[in-house]
Amino acid sequence: MTRFDSATMVAAVGEGRYTAELDPGYLIGRAINGGYLMAIMQRAALIESPHAHAVSSSYHFLRPGTAGPAEIDVAVLKAGRTVATVQVTARQNGAALVTGTIATATMDPSAVPVYEAEPAPVPPIEECVRFDPRAGQISTTSFIERVDQYYTQESWDRINRRAADPVPELVGHVRLSEVDGRDNDDPSLFLPLAVDALPPVVVTLDSWRWAPTVELTWHMRAIPEPGPLTFRSRAAAVNDGWFDETVDLWDTKGRLVAQSRQLARSSR
Amino acid sequence: MTRFDSATMVAAVGEGRYTAELDPGYLIGRAINGGYLMAIMQRAALIESPHAHAVSSSYHFLRPGTAGPAEIDVAVLKAGRTVATVQVTARQNGAALVTGTIATATMDPSAVPVYEAEPAPVPPIEECVRFDPRAGQISTTSFIERVDQYYTQESWDRINRRAADPVPELVGHVRLSEVDGRDNDDPSLFLPLAVDALPPVVVTLDSWRWAPTVELTWHMRAIPEPGPLTFRSRAAAVNDGWFDETVDLWDTKGRLVAQSRQLARSSR
Repeated sequence: MTRFDSATMVAAVGEGRYTAELDPGYLIGRAINGGYLMAIMQRAALIESPHAHAVSSSYHFLRPGTAGPAEIDVAVLKAGRTVATVQVTARQNGAALVTGTIATATMDPSAVPVYEAEPAPVPPIEECVRFDPRAGQISTTSFIERVDQYYTQESWDRINRRAADPVPELVGHVRLSEVDGRDNDDPSLFLPLAVDALPPVVVTLDSWRWAPTVELTWHMRAIPEPGPLTFRSRAAAVNDGWFDETVDLWDTKGRLVAQSRQLARSSR
Repeated sequence: MTRFDSATMVAAVGEGRYTAELDPGYLIGRAINGGYLMAIMQRAALIESPHAHAVSSSYHFLRPGTAGPAEIDVAVLKAGRTVATVQVTARQNGAALVTGTIATATMDPSAVPVYEAEPAPVPPIEECVRFDPRAGQISTTSFIERVDQYYTQESWDRINRRAADPVPELVGHVRLSEVDGRDNDDPSLFLPLAVDALPPVVVTLDSWRWAPTVELTWHMRAIPEPGPLTFRSRAAAVNDGWFDETVDLWDTKGRLVAQSRQLARSSR
């Protein structure tokens, strides 16, 4: 069992009620990573659903969470034969941290896409730069140890703001870290963490700072193959203290497995 | 007052409780349009919020609504100084149709974007084809009379599946219809209808059919100028009975005002 598997476990304590222990390894500064929280909430939601997959998940982030115990409440809004919709809220000390609504369904691993846009052209992982927290170019946190990140040279230059054109777009590969046991049993459970594990895409435009997510919606589009995921993260607009971050993930076979978009505050 | 303004009115009937009368003009077949429902729900949500704008709104569609009376329940989850988050549910005959969560804030009309991607290159409205319900090429519904739609010739060919390359991407312009009184007082209230008023983008790939939205999230990125909005609607994947539809809207000054993505069923 990987650290991710054990860190996202939930324990049933009543009708639609679960507890979890938030692992301090997933802190970014003093706040727990949102993707990690989503991964925990999804596990509780799927226990309550008759279906296997979180196909469409929207989360609103109300206040930052921290390490330690959390309560997860799950309510089934609709239990349909094709789609079951579940509302899930994570709380600490009685205060809601995140509320999510998840449309669950059972996806077919043998489905053949009717249409797929071209994946982002990203060179193989061997040709990418490993985001090495020990390199000390960017302030590190223990969270960086949870997820291995690989960037193209161009993206790496953008992160370090050495790019001639400061475009808010980053591409590369992402997977659960080797130190934590690498790939977990069910690659689809990594998706909610993967869509919110990268540095805020606006780091390409300005110095690294706190960029709290207000809303994040992600859609699972296919069951991923095991192995690293290829990502593209980009923003369409940074305006009035808000920015969007749209993240697409493809598996090793080049299949689009997740589409995510978040709206976040860019504190200035 | 436009028909849209009167058709989206809500009446307070108690603590966080509203009623609305769903206008049959917004039916598509036997189901009420989702964008119209979102516009009504947003009006109720903004009454309960201390802030003026629905900045980030996610909706899960549980069952189709119809014309006639509906109840709207609003609960404030967090009343922050910068962001207030509101949960809103629309019901008919006691059954929930749609549940939404809306992060509200007050946007600055004079904000200058720090970054904006290039808008989609769309020729002016005069060079586009008006989607004319009387042309009879596509089965019409009264909903088509509510929103005037203009497509580029290429998009029009795609809708009618005369395109050499059947790409699920449509561009053009959209506004409240002339027969209904044209632009409403507050252009930002049209945005939730505009992001869900176009034909399902998969009509470019297959014959026109029922494509129920399961989840739709849209972000307001700037306060729109009055006048028509330029749109681009596209899908990244059609797989396993699901498709995404990502809609961007720009105002007459070329500013990105809304970003939407929905996940819908493609019944086959």
